[in-house]
Amino acid sequence: MPERHRIVIVGGGFGGLRAAQALKRAPVDITLIDRRNFHLFQPLLYQVATGGLSPANIAAPLRGVLKKQQNARVLLGEVTDADVAGRRVILKDGEVPYDTLIVATGARHHYFGHSEWEHLAPGLKTVEDGTRIRTKILLAFEAAERELDPARESAWLTFVIVGAGPTGVELAGALSEIAHDTLKHDFRRVDPSQARIILVEASDRVLPPYPPVLSERAAAALRRLRVTIRTGTTVTGVQQDSVTVQTAGGSEVIPARTVLWAAGVQGSHLGRALAAATGAQLDRSGRPAVNPDLSLPGHPEVLVIGDLANFAHQMGRPLPGVAQVAMQQGCYAAKLIRARLRGRDLPPFRYHDRGNMATIGRAAAVVELPWLRFSGFAAWLAWLFIHLLYIVEFQNRLLVMVQWAWNYFSFNRSARLITGENPFPLDL
Amino acid sequence: MPERHRIVIVGGGFGGLRAAQALKRAPVDITLIDRRNFHLFQPLLYQVATGGLSPANIAAPLRGVLKKQQNARVLLGEVTDADVAGRRVILKDGEVPYDTLIVATGARHHYFGHSEWEHLAPGLKTVEDGTRIRTKILLAFEAAERELDPARESAWLTFVIVGAGPTGVELAGALSEIAHDTLKHDFRRVDPSQARIILVEASDRVLPPYPPVLSERAAAALRRLRVTIRTGTTVTGVQQDSVTVQTAGGSEVIPARTVLWAAGVQGSHLGRALAAATGAQLDRSGRPAVNPDLSLPGHPEVLVIGDLANFAHQMGRPLPGVAQVAMQQGCYAAKLIRARLRGRDLPPFRYHDRGNMATIGRAAAVVELPWLRFSGFAAWLAWLFIHLLYIVEFQNRLLVMVQWAWNYFSFNRSARLITGENPFPLDL
Repeated sequence: MPERHRIVIVGGGFGGLRAAQALKRAPVDITLIDRRNFHLFQPLLYQVATGGLSPANIAAPLRGVLKKQQNARVLLGEVTDADVAGRRVILKDGEVPYDTLIVATGARHHYFGHSEWEHLAPGLKTVEDGTRIRTKILLAFEAAERELDPARESAWLTFVIVGAGPTGVELAGALSEIAHDTLKHDFRRVDPSQARIILVEASDRVLPPYPPVLSERAAAALRRLRVTIRTGTTVTGVQQDSVTVQTAGGSEVIPARTVLWAAGVQGSHLGRALAAATGAQLDRSGRPAVNPDLSLPGHPEVLVIGDLANFAHQMGRPLPGVAQVAMQQGCYAAKLIRARLRGRDLPPFRYHDRGNMATIGRAAAVVELPWLRFSGFAAWLAWLFIHLLYIVEFQNRLLVMVQWAWNYFSFNRSARLITGENPFPLDL
Repeated sequence: MPERHRIVIVGGGFGGLRAAQALKRAPVDITLIDRRNFHLFQPLLYQVATGGLSPANIAAPLRGVLKKQQNARVLLGEVTDADVAGRRVILKDGEVPYDTLIVATGARHHYFGHSEWEHLAPGLKTVEDGTRIRTKILLAFEAAERELDPARESAWLTFVIVGAGPTGVELAGALSEIAHDTLKHDFRRVDPSQARIILVEASDRVLPPYPPVLSERAAAALRRLRVTIRTGTTVTGVQQDSVTVQTAGGSEVIPARTVLWAAGVQGSHLGRALAAATGAQLDRSGRPAVNPDLSLPGHPEVLVIGDLANFAHQMGRPLPGVAQVAMQQGCYAAKLIRARLRGRDLPPFRYHDRGNMATIGRAAAVVELPWLRFSGFAAWLAWLFIHLLYIVEFQNRLLVMVQWAWNYFSFNRSARLITGENPFPLDL
């Protein structure tokens, strides 16, 4: 038997997993490498961070997803480098040769050169981030209940979210629900509804990538949830008990013990290594610029897809780092490989924007489709439906549905566990 | 308004929570102190450890449970000591005075003087234990898939469970299901059904506290699941890649990378402090001997309940450390306090054994009721029903039911996430 074309896919997110699945019937040997053993449905991670869902509800074991796909194997491993000349990826504990490499390792948060802010203002990318932020939010209310000094209590009850993209907006909405509904009768001394939720955004409106009319509706919905919106405001400092912001009017210090980061992304480290090896241009966010067919310069056998890729051949600026782009690029990569195996080629990748959406707390959302924009309850139902549809495992779809229905009708969020290291005294 | 009787309850497990709830209508001020913010349904923790359920499914936030009980407040805090003479409990970050103290802090695992075994052979008491063991089990299969040396591969696929009480039996059954059903098609090189699951028990039968006939049926069910039962066997050493056991025939080294501890309990540290302060006798497991009314010698206002209490006035030996005993003692403590407030007293505590049960994998269980013993599918249904009944939150009951039904029909366990610190290389 002649050896089959070996495809290595690094990263089991939306892009990598879709690429693997789209190669189901191709005469190839696929190795999907991920350092986690599960695919994560990141768009719902904010619900883990706010106690509405459990991590397992938005995760699907990669081996389970691909168990019936005989041409694919899963390798749990951490890729540290790629030897492009030798056509092999380097793991922490081994190496894997390839004929075609698909890199889909995504991005992490970007602190604009202030990596010291990371432990004070965590971002939301992994399940551990989700449970850590959940613990941070819940402990803030616990600390407020124990605090006797009014100024310090107020700082415990102030939550600053940096960045008003979809994640920031969704976090702000969910936090407001926690404070006003979920925890309503939970405390005896402190009143959780006194919590201040401040959404800080550098540009002039929330949801900056969306049309202005939807930004306005989202802002109105957030204000109804008593979220304070501070647009035109940049963060210049994050301290243990405060955030320093800069506006047109000058600098200001906001006392706050909980700061969550939903601004800026940075390509994962493999992007830098690939750019160095191939001469691809690296943008400010550490993403290599890819060719129109998603390959790197001089290396048609190396494809970069998803959040890690800077694809600037369509909109004049890089495509947004959303699941849709990653999935379409994963499909394209698979198609391209199949075409090449038959000695053909494909026209360049084109992104088809099927619309965008964001939810803002209970029964409110904004939806932008190519032919329609709407908001409110109908948009929220559409948001629910689409998100349920894209969750990978059927059991998880069912569990998420039960929990959403329950959370909606009871105003409750039962996954609000404080886990991890012993947190006493709470002041630390 | 005259000051009301102040009750401090330390520990929000079965005993402490039940005591608080049974004082619902009493004219008292209750402070329930726990270092976790949730009540944990420990009997199902083995299902978290084996990927069947999520931690939040078997946990209920204490504040949520008591939110409508106006005479109770919850304090998130770690109790380090009790000042019995001064009638106050000492927290890591404060102190709380009491008129009556109920101590329900439970027990941890006991390594028979070999605390160095703890990190090699983790026990199962907290949600973190559950997710850590889950990670350990799943990583063992991943490591086996990567291992090329047959002897080392076999050690990765050998799982030793120490202690054949209900937890050990349930873990062994669930592990067998994972190996033979759940992971069946997950790997390409290794065959998970080659896994050896060895249940080690020092006494002469599994489920030693149960009647011999049920032990026999449980053993038969375990053998059908291909679990190797080693009774009359004690562990004398735990190493990184093996376990040393002692039998009548001599000493033996079993190569195994995964050892789980389900043997022996030790009272939490507060038991020791209370014994020192009151002169109560401390048993070998660190549990203070309590009076017939659950109080400590000379201190009718200090009650010890649940796993921490050594109550030896009924069966000639201490009552078993099970949820039933803890709940009945919690109720008794509440009743005793209410009686005393009316100037009365109560007859000594008496435990009413309502039966015992253990489940052994899919559709098999043993049940012992005072008037009936049975096993098999009916026992398994009874086990399901009782456990669902006692889960505190309605939403969780629903979620557990959905997951059980799904896991049963699909042979799947979708909560099999490897979380936590970066595990590479897997050999560490």
